[in-house]
Amino acid sequence: MTVKIAVAGASGYAGGELLRLLLTHPHVEIGALTAASSAGTPLGTHQPHLVPLADRVLTETTPETLAGHDVVFLALPHGHSAEIAARLGPDVLVVDLGADHRLADAADWQRWYGGEHAGQWPYGLPELPGAREKLVGTKRIAVPGCFPTGGSLALAPALTAGLILPDVAIVSVTGTSGAGKSLKPNLLGSEVMGSASPYGVGGAHRHTPEFAQNLAAVAGTRVSVSFTPVLAPMSRGILTTASAPLAGEVDAAAARAVYEKAYGAEPFVQLLPEGAWPATAATLGSNNVQLQVTVDPDAKRLVVIAAIDNLTKGTAGGAVQSMNLALGFPEHTGLPTVGVAP
Amino acid sequence: MTVKIAVAGASGYAGGELLRLLLTHPHVEIGALTAASSAGTPLGTHQPHLVPLADRVLTETTPETLAGHDVVFLALPHGHSAEIAARLGPDVLVVDLGADHRLADAADWQRWYGGEHAGQWPYGLPELPGAREKLVGTKRIAVPGCFPTGGSLALAPALTAGLILPDVAIVSVTGTSGAGKSLKPNLLGSEVMGSASPYGVGGAHRHTPEFAQNLAAVAGTRVSVSFTPVLAPMSRGILTTASAPLAGEVDAAAARAVYEKAYGAEPFVQLLPEGAWPATAATLGSNNVQLQVTVDPDAKRLVVIAAIDNLTKGTAGGAVQSMNLALGFPEHTGLPTVGVAP
Amino acid sequence: MTVKIAVAGASGYAGGELLRLLLTHPHVEIGALTAASSAGTPLGTHQPHLVPLADRVLTETTPETLAGHDVVFLALPHGHSAEIAARLGPDVLVVDLGADHRLADAADWQRWYGGEHAGQWPYGLPELPGAREKLVGTKRIAVPGCFPTGGSLALAPALTAGLILPDVAIVSVTGTSGAGKSLKPNLLGSEVMGSASPYGVGGAHRHTPEFAQNLAAVAGTRVSVSFTPVLAPMSRGILTTASAPLAGEVDAAAARAVYEKAYGAEPFVQLLPEGAWPATAATLGSNNVQLQVTVDPDAKRLVVIAAIDNLTKGTAGGAVQSMNLALGFPEHTGLPTVGVAP
Amino acid sequence: MTVKIAVAGASGYAGGELLRLLLTHPHVEIGALTAASSAGTPLGTHQPHLVPLADRVLTETTPETLAGHDVVFLALPHGHSAEIAARLGPDVLVVDLGADHRLADAADWQRWYGGEHAGQWPYGLPELPGAREKLVGTKRIAVPGCFPTGGSLALAPALTAGLILPDVAIVSVTGTSGAGKSLKPNLLGSEVMGSASPYGVGGAHRHTPEFAQNLAAVAGTRVSVSFTPVLAPMSRGILTTASAPLAGEVDAAAARAVYEKAYGAEPFVQLLPEGAWPATAATLGSNNVQLQVTVDPDAKRLVVIAAIDNLTKGTAGGAVQSMNLALGFPEHTGLPTVGVAP
Repeated sequence: MTVKIAVAGASGYAGGELLRLLLTHPHVEIGALTAASSAGTPLGTHQPHLVPLADRVLTETTPETLAGHDVVFLALPHGHSAEIAARLGPDVLVVDLGADHRLADAADWQRWYGGEHAGQWPYGLPELPGAREKLVGTKRIAVPGCFPTGGSLALAPALTAGLILPDVAIVSVTGTSGAGKSLKPNLLGSEVMGSASPYGVGGAHRHTPEFAQNLAAVAGTRVSVSFTPVLAPMSRGILTTASAPLAGEVDAAAARAVYEKAYGAEPFVQLLPEGAWPATAATLGSNNVQLQVTVDPDAKRLVVIAAIDNLTKGTAGGAVQSMNLALGFPEHTGLPTVGVAP
Repeated sequence: MTVKIAVAGASGYAGGELLRLLLTHPHVEIGALTAASSAGTPLGTHQPHLVPLADRVLTETTPETLAGHDVVFLALPHGHSAEIAARLGPDVLVVDLGADHRLADAADWQRWYGGEHAGQWPYGLPELPGAREKLVGTKRIAVPGCFPTGGSLALAPALTAGLILPDVAIVSVTGTSGAGKSLKPNLLGSEVMGSASPYGVGGAHRHTPEFAQNLAAVAGTRVSVSFTPVLAPMSRGILTTASAPLAGEVDAAAARAVYEKAYGAEPFVQLLPEGAWPATAATLGSNNVQLQVTVDPDAKRLVVIAAIDNLTKGTAGGAVQSMNLALGFPEHTGLPTVGVAP
Repeated sequence: MTVKIAVAGASGYAGGELLRLLLTHPHVEIGALTAASSAGTPLGTHQPHLVPLADRVLTETTPETLAGHDVVFLALPHGHSAEIAARLGPDVLVVDLGADHRLADAADWQRWYGGEHAGQWPYGLPELPGAREKLVGTKRIAVPGCFPTGGSLALAPALTAGLILPDVAIVSVTGTSGAGKSLKPNLLGSEVMGSASPYGVGGAHRHTPEFAQNLAAVAGTRVSVSFTPVLAPMSRGILTTASAPLAGEVDAAAARAVYEKAYGAEPFVQLLPEGAWPATAATLGSNNVQLQVTVDPDAKRLVVIAAIDNLTKGTAGGAVQSMNLALGFPEHTGLPTVGVAP
Repeated sequence: MTVKIAVAGASGYAGGELLRLLLTHPHVEIGALTAASSAGTPLGTHQPHLVPLADRVLTETTPETLAGHDVVFLALPHGHSAEIAARLGPDVLVVDLGADHRLADAADWQRWYGGEHAGQWPYGLPELPGAREKLVGTKRIAVPGCFPTGGSLALAPALTAGLILPDVAIVSVTGTSGAGKSLKPNLLGSEVMGSASPYGVGGAHRHTPEFAQNLAAVAGTRVSVSFTPVLAPMSRGILTTASAPLAGEVDAAAARAVYEKAYGAEPFVQLLPEGAWPATAATLGSNNVQLQVTVDPDAKRLVVIAAIDNLTKGTAGGAVQSMNLALGFPEHTGLPTVGVAP
């Protein structure tokens, strides 16, 4: 079986990564590639690494250009995807890589994004308890934000098992590609190289309510989330350090056992051997999440580290994994479990 | 007045940074430059940026080569500096950039470093409450570790003022030069570039007891410290994210006022304008600490960000600043307050 | 048909890249993985990105551990591979990623490497005139050096067509992974980041005679080669700038036509659209060579730019491509033509 | 004696570097700081590293705001500086960091920049034969382009001494800050990191005629210049590899002697010890040019390597050095000869 797919936002980083993965997917035929200001230009101008598609010409992102496909991926600024999605038929599988359909709560949406709430879709993070089931057969998928992908998986087992109190501190060191190709001075190479800097500090980042939603679901109670993203001089990768007070007496071995059980059967999550710590480079270009967990006996906190590639597992890989579940393909189809390193 | 100084460990990164600063210090004459395996070679081979000293030949690090100087800087592996220091006269100002004389508690020393405890010296972080006074006129200085420099200054005002509970979570993103020139595979450029990775997770980093000691002193009570360093692809810089639960109702403005009061008169600490966040690049090569503080109203935590250059304020700059206090020079002598950016 | 392969030197960068590619090769079964000082440890310790092989234990590199395989890849220091190769049977396909079997001339070998000359094997750069034919069915392959891979392909069409005089100047900007995991101070992240520096200047780099040999073969005459490698702050990638005096009146369009003809049918070589210039990032992880050619009308020189990934096309990808030819598999089997960017 | 200076373009990289240097200049008082779209905002918003000037508010760049200063530095896009300069009085020292007054030939100006030729001013590269004299007492200075700074100094001694034929090939690896803060997609951190890419290939870069002008002046004849800049993942630094055919029998020692003689008395030019090669990191933040020269005996070419910091010696440092000469201050005043490394 082959499905015909379209990518809206094909000139951006998320769109490019989608196409990189889909080019190796045996059940996919690549159809319309659309863009906004880049419409009319060849894809190769924007994505010179996508050699087999270099001569494909971008068309405008409209319901018309996206019509006639089995799957439509929306890699668009928030607000835009809900608008377009509303005009695609119910039989089309719509995979939204933006934020529009992630939050359940309309008030949250209002506060963090503004504008009308488009409603919540099944959440494309199959490794979260209960999530995989909702993706099977669905026609609508909300792909998680890049930070909540690694961060939620880092904390879910501990919260589910009651190892920690619902009061977590998360610091995520991220590459620049998560910000897309937006032309902002602070994203210039000259500013980024040789520098680390935070943004959205104090709970101001829009991924905070998504963290809270995911973690409350697994904890069964409200979870206080302190989240700080830090921009580092690398294109790809997110290294999340998450910690929380222990709920009782737990040692590193017991914590490890909980994570082994939670992720032992997951194709894309690796609990590293004891003593080994994740590095983002090892996940580059792969759909993997590399994890390590330990207990700080003095501070009486659980500390979990998670490394992902923000564009792969954190965006496009998560999207393809969820599409596979929705369409009944083996979950790992078209998704590398081997990183590109060094 | 001119003092004659010696640098033990002149071929390393800390030693090189010391010399970079001391070359512009108007009251310093540079005497012996010593090393271990590099003895007998010209400094220029190891520090090609120190042009005026390129032809100076390194001698061996012994009490004899270090004799006859007013000030001796020890940039040596821990253990070695205590050994050498013990053989330098009481009239010599000894500035130890290593760990040997930082910790008050012998049991802490045993646990974290091992071997005999060499005792505690006045601590070279003048901006900590009470520290400056102890440095004036001293003949022995223990220069702080690079992480506790920024991290302690980030948290001290809040702990002193009782804004937060004594339970802090610290994540510090660091450049590679803090690890020195040690030839370890994980420090190779090929491994570091494009990657973020933690180490010493779960309270295993040796700077943890130094954090605890500093913070307890200002808080007047034991402080629980969860500290995680993360290696990022840059040579210099530490960006510390520190957070802790609020002790009561505090808003961002009130928190800011506490920090303004604490650091308003400090020559090297800048509380940035509201809305601006520190970036390590802005501190490169300077002795500055750039800070910002805010309150996360949902998580009910104070969040503080501090940026420093690990080799300048975090090591060699702190050493020179403390030397200035010890010898009665104006504190800022020979210390840049302007970074090299971009 | 499936062949069983062994990799000698599996803990290094070339060995790791080979395994990354071979893991996706449909006709390959991965057998012995050998190493020197790392023997006895799991591959995951050294190559955490090779998730499916993480638990495989490295054995020592000996003729015995390498016996019983259809194909043996030697990713060893020069000298060692000839030694081992001599003890592998004539029916085994031996693919040498080192230098031992590249040079035809024993005097060249003596001058540049020293020791006994092991003889020349078919050269694993199928895109060079005459090279592909010699690889079909061979049992011995000498994989080219990373610099001569891109540089030879950059200049071969012009020399073959007589567009330029046999007097070329080549400057290649390279990532650090080409130097392997050797623990040298100048390869530390702290030294590499933020810096560009040359090495082997003035014709002192060992790839110079390999350039000369390749270019003389296509030019039909001795070619003077001035080659300078420049280390840049990136893990992967080589960007070669090659120029030479025009042999007569040639404009950019005519030069372009020569390159189009030379490489139009090559699966891994892309002559970019006019006005587009290669960037190494676009080739990362792929077996591609991206090229552009132009004429400098004032300097009367042809200028060619070539970008490759030094570990893929420049080492392991070239090795797999040549293996495919030797064994009769389609040439592109297991080799990505899509890069990982940004 | 103190001079009052103004900087037009103070929010950019060149303007920022000027201020960094001028803050340490003992004879300078910093007056108006002007900008275009950033007028009205504090300097600290754009240059957080210039701590002592953080609160200074930028004014608009007009002849009026620039009036009343002894020295006016113009760090403006080409075309703009000539316009402004024409409206500044003859007694003001005008230092143009742009291209407007570099080229002698109006036809060259027309071809490479377009618009009216503003005429040529004394050239701010004192180390070129004859240049220093013309700067003493001048009221108008044209600061060289960053590439011609290092590249001209790399080749001048050899051309002057007749060691090489007037046919040079120059490849310069450059950091991104030379492109300024312009918001172009190819300058984004995500694009730059991990990548090397050329631009202005085939003699298309605007610094080519400036090279030709400088080199012809020292050679006494037209010099053919093939120039290729390559963007590398670093903020600062230019590493130039320049080579040319030997004019006769010259060995490395003889070439070295020529360079020693040419630069032995220069305060900012260092011919490195034999066997040592320049690295841009060693020059970071300094006004130095680090050089090495050798002969390729096989290719019969002279090869010279030069490293500079493009913003310091390549722009703002050269400007201050030339100002010093124009005003009669010691040439090295306010200019570091020590780099910031690693």
